[in-house]
Amino acid sequence: MGTIQQPWEQIVSQKRAIRENLLAPYLVDIEHRVPRVDRVDYRTRREDEPEVQRITDLDLASLLKRLETGELTAHEVIHAYIKRAVVAHQLTNCLTEILFDEALQQAQKLDDEFSSTGKLKGPLHGIPITLKDQFNVKGVDSTLGYVGRSFQPASEDAVLVQILKDMGAIVIAKTNLCQSIMWAETENPLWGLTTNARNPAFTPGGSTGGEGPLLALHGSILGFGTDIGGSIRIPQSFAGLYGLKPSSSRFPYEGVPVSTQGQEHVPSSIGPMTRDLPSLTYITKQITSCTLWTLDPRCAPLPWNETLFTSTQSKPLTIGLILNDGIVTPHPPITRTLAELCSALTAQGHEVIPWDTSDHADCIKIMDSFYTVDGGEDIRRDIAVAGEPYLPHVQALVNRGSPISVYEYWQLNKRKHAAQKKYLDKWTTTRSNSGRQVDVLLAPAMPHTSIPHRTFRWVGYTKIWNFLDYTALTFPVDQVRKEIDGVVGTEYVPRNELDEWNWKLWDVDAVDGYPVNLQIVGKKLEEEKVLGAATAIEGIWKSYVEGKHAE
Amino acid sequence: MGTIQQPWEQIVSQKRAIRENLLAPYLVDIEHRVPRVDRVDYRTRREDEPEVQRITDLDLASLLKRLETGELTAHEVIHAYIKRAVVAHQLTNCLTEILFDEALQQAQKLDDEFSSTGKLKGPLHGIPITLKDQFNVKGVDSTLGYVGRSFQPASEDAVLVQILKDMGAIVIAKTNLCQSIMWAETENPLWGLTTNARNPAFTPGGSTGGEGPLLALHGSILGFGTDIGGSIRIPQSFAGLYGLKPSSSRFPYEGVPVSTQGQEHVPSSIGPMTRDLPSLTYITKQITSCTLWTLDPRCAPLPWNETLFTSTQSKPLTIGLILNDGIVTPHPPITRTLAELCSALTAQGHEVIPWDTSDHADCIKIMDSFYTVDGGEDIRRDIAVAGEPYLPHVQALVNRGSPISVYEYWQLNKRKHAAQKKYLDKWTTTRSNSGRQVDVLLAPAMPHTSIPHRTFRWVGYTKIWNFLDYTALTFPVDQVRKEIDGVVGTEYVPRNELDEWNWKLWDVDAVDGYPVNLQIVGKKLEEEKVLGAATAIEGIWKSYVEGKHAE
Repeated sequence: MGTIQQPWEQIVSQKRAIRENLLAPYLVDIEHRVPRVDRVDYRTRREDEPEVQRITDLDLASLLKRLETGELTAHEVIHAYIKRAVVAHQLTNCLTEILFDEALQQAQKLDDEFSSTGKLKGPLHGIPITLKDQFNVKGVDSTLGYVGRSFQPASEDAVLVQILKDMGAIVIAKTNLCQSIMWAETENPLWGLTTNARNPAFTPGGSTGGEGPLLALHGSILGFGTDIGGSIRIPQSFAGLYGLKPSSSRFPYEGVPVSTQGQEHVPSSIGPMTRDLPSLTYITKQITSCTLWTLDPRCAPLPWNETLFTSTQSKPLTIGLILNDGIVTPHPPITRTLAELCSALTAQGHEVIPWDTSDHADCIKIMDSFYTVDGGEDIRRDIAVAGEPYLPHVQALVNRGSPISVYEYWQLNKRKHAAQKKYLDKWTTTRSNSGRQVDVLLAPAMPHTSIPHRTFRWVGYTKIWNFLDYTALTFPVDQVRKEIDGVVGTEYVPRNELDEWNWKLWDVDAVDGYPVNLQIVGKKLEEEKVLGAATAIEGIWKSYVEGKHAE
Repeated sequence: MGTIQQPWEQIVSQKRAIRENLLAPYLVDIEHRVPRVDRVDYRTRREDEPEVQRITDLDLASLLKRLETGELTAHEVIHAYIKRAVVAHQLTNCLTEILFDEALQQAQKLDDEFSSTGKLKGPLHGIPITLKDQFNVKGVDSTLGYVGRSFQPASEDAVLVQILKDMGAIVIAKTNLCQSIMWAETENPLWGLTTNARNPAFTPGGSTGGEGPLLALHGSILGFGTDIGGSIRIPQSFAGLYGLKPSSSRFPYEGVPVSTQGQEHVPSSIGPMTRDLPSLTYITKQITSCTLWTLDPRCAPLPWNETLFTSTQSKPLTIGLILNDGIVTPHPPITRTLAELCSALTAQGHEVIPWDTSDHADCIKIMDSFYTVDGGEDIRRDIAVAGEPYLPHVQALVNRGSPISVYEYWQLNKRKHAAQKKYLDKWTTTRSNSGRQVDVLLAPAMPHTSIPHRTFRWVGYTKIWNFLDYTALTFPVDQVRKEIDGVVGTEYVPRNELDEWNWKLWDVDAVDGYPVNLQIVGKKLEEEKVLGAATAIEGIWKSYVEGKHAE
């Protein structure tokens, strides 16, 4: 990694100018598109273009059906998504690399092939996808948000990108992320700050924070991110959408550069992000059916297990409930929805038992030590290439610890293994009242809903599952309801400084109506079980909510 | 890890005295038990005890059958094996921790249970097993050959040991290994030097070098070792026996301390060692059917795949042939048997194609860098505890490189991944003449057969598969035949200094009659495929050899 003589600001100007030029033909007036919480997708409505509106409001299954029948062409779909994505970008600054021209060309090619063969290219024929700006796409930069990685186009597609393209998917853009990738917000000196879909003063979460707003605003229908501490689940939680963090050896990481690459003791995972649960299952099934282990040496030889997925939906589940990790108490709407969901599940014959989290603090302590084992050298080097400024939290991270020796690193890894073994033993020996083993855990995704920029501190509810390399899924259940959530918790006595910080963030007036997501967690490589349980749980919850409204 | 004030020699004396006391009741006169190459098991014959002789010559299936019918008791079996194991030890110094009393008690308990229930405890009821002195057995030291780890009994059984005990297996002893575990011979200041079953001047190989002689001399019927560069396969090759190195996430490593523990970028594997191939399959099947991933967080959720095992045996195989790794040319009997086996396989409709090894040198270069990333600190610390002397090769290893930073370690790991990806791509894109993908590779296990002590240098034929984390199995095919192998290769021009060293080792008079083993290799976690292919290949080879003798 060398250094660049050109001033970093100049590179930023060049990169942004290229982006603006590519966006220019599609820009709209956004003056009247003011912040809104309810039906946030209305912010990007294209009433001027009813066909664009209609296409981008379809769900994945409906879109695929219309592509299959020829009712829609790939070109129409891609074009519609480009148009709406640009509005989403104008509102939130979510896009980085713009691939519209290539995407439209690919769409045309698909349409030509379809015209002559009558056959779809694959199970994602003509579907627009967006990728966190880490995934290598041939001919396009993978900046990771570093100025110094500009103008170094990838020489080939990442394994996952190739798979998606082979299925007929079309990459329309790459999306913003956080400098260092090790933070739960979305900002870097190269592409700037990405904002929440509902409110520019709020963070979209991160580090895959370009995808959340883009999906929420119907600028994409399928996104991919990476997650080493919650980077898929946090933005999707704030957006009120769906995200899956599989175990790290399930999806192929090959061709996806990342900060602290080569570090695998707390592994990062790749996963999908969608607007609904069936799409999340669909894409996971399609990808894991691709003999990934013949393409990426890290992938476990596990094809999609349909039996496990369906059987999980047809049996009484035993669910471990995490209301609190013992460190940071979630805000009232999170606790409320967890309790209400549990009650709905119990009423339908599922069994819910409390889950012991007394070991979470220890796990997180070990995990935090891993983040700085190189004394921040990896991030420092990337930043030094072009010499852009550090964001304050990145500066703090690289200054947090001195590098340790490889020998000490191994000792840390031994502690990690011991903690993982202890957690696994807890899971396999815990029994419900009826004597059954826990299938999945139900937990908060975050201790709070959306928050203002630069107020992030605690991601313990997501990162614990990275430490254990378990499967975790975030899904929406409700929204903050001032009339209920505003009347509780004023007399709360925080148990520590972090808890106090979180409690002070609670401002029911500011977040009334914002999405509330929860998390479903399975053991290592139990993606089918988690998706199956989520399907069952969401089904029960939706019926329950409908029943309540009918009352 | 503290230091011990007591002189290291005193600890060694104490440990050895305990061992001698426990062996004493079983010692025999070994004067007439002179070195022999052919039928090496005759060296430990117990003509004085025909029942002992009969029991210890049975194969695993026959033994289990007799235990099931009650024709033999567990106590008889364990007692017989103890008696023969002691002779093996007297000849080769293969045992470390002696567990005879406990073993006999456990056997009696099994017999009592069997008397009352008529049922076997499990699929290894009453079967004696031996373990490399790394596996934790409750109440017994896991010395790893370090003086400083003496008198620190394990507080619980390793996961694998517990599984084996639950199946009814009985640990009769632990076996010797090499100081540092990172060497292919078997010697340490605590337990001394272990010798080859055939000849005390020859090494048994290592680092699991206690098992090879013990199995060859019928002092055990089932052993377990660890393998990070060939440590299961090399001793079994020299013994003319069978050993499987699975991929690292297949067998549970939990509760098995190891040198450079916490280092997992070139992972060590646990695997079984047997006297025949059906036993190797049997034990692998039994163990991998144990939902290991619920016991060890490192294990992949892969139950035994019987379909893959059987289908591999009933189809025409496509085999990649490695005659030479391009670095060290194998001795004549190895090349001869490889060629002859290939001809036999081709005659039976299997397809053999040459396998490109031009990337092996690069892989091994990266791998060797991993061995010294900590500057030898892990080994140094273990040796410093009691202050015993370094063996020369261990001294050389710890002095070979300076510690590198964690950041550099990650860069090394990136190079490893790139090499692994390249190798996988080679495998998946290579096609045979008939257009098929390669199922398994057939390769030398070592470039030489048994060699004198302290002459080891090149384990590239085994360790390449650790680097790739592939599955590899060693199996015997023939012996050195002076009348054939002695007439070739005298005019060989070595291609490098290592090759020259190996060629100079070739002494047909010294190794006439010694076993020749080969290796079968599958991709990551393809244990069933490798065992299936080995079964098919061995079947063809045995028929071929019988046919030749009938001519």
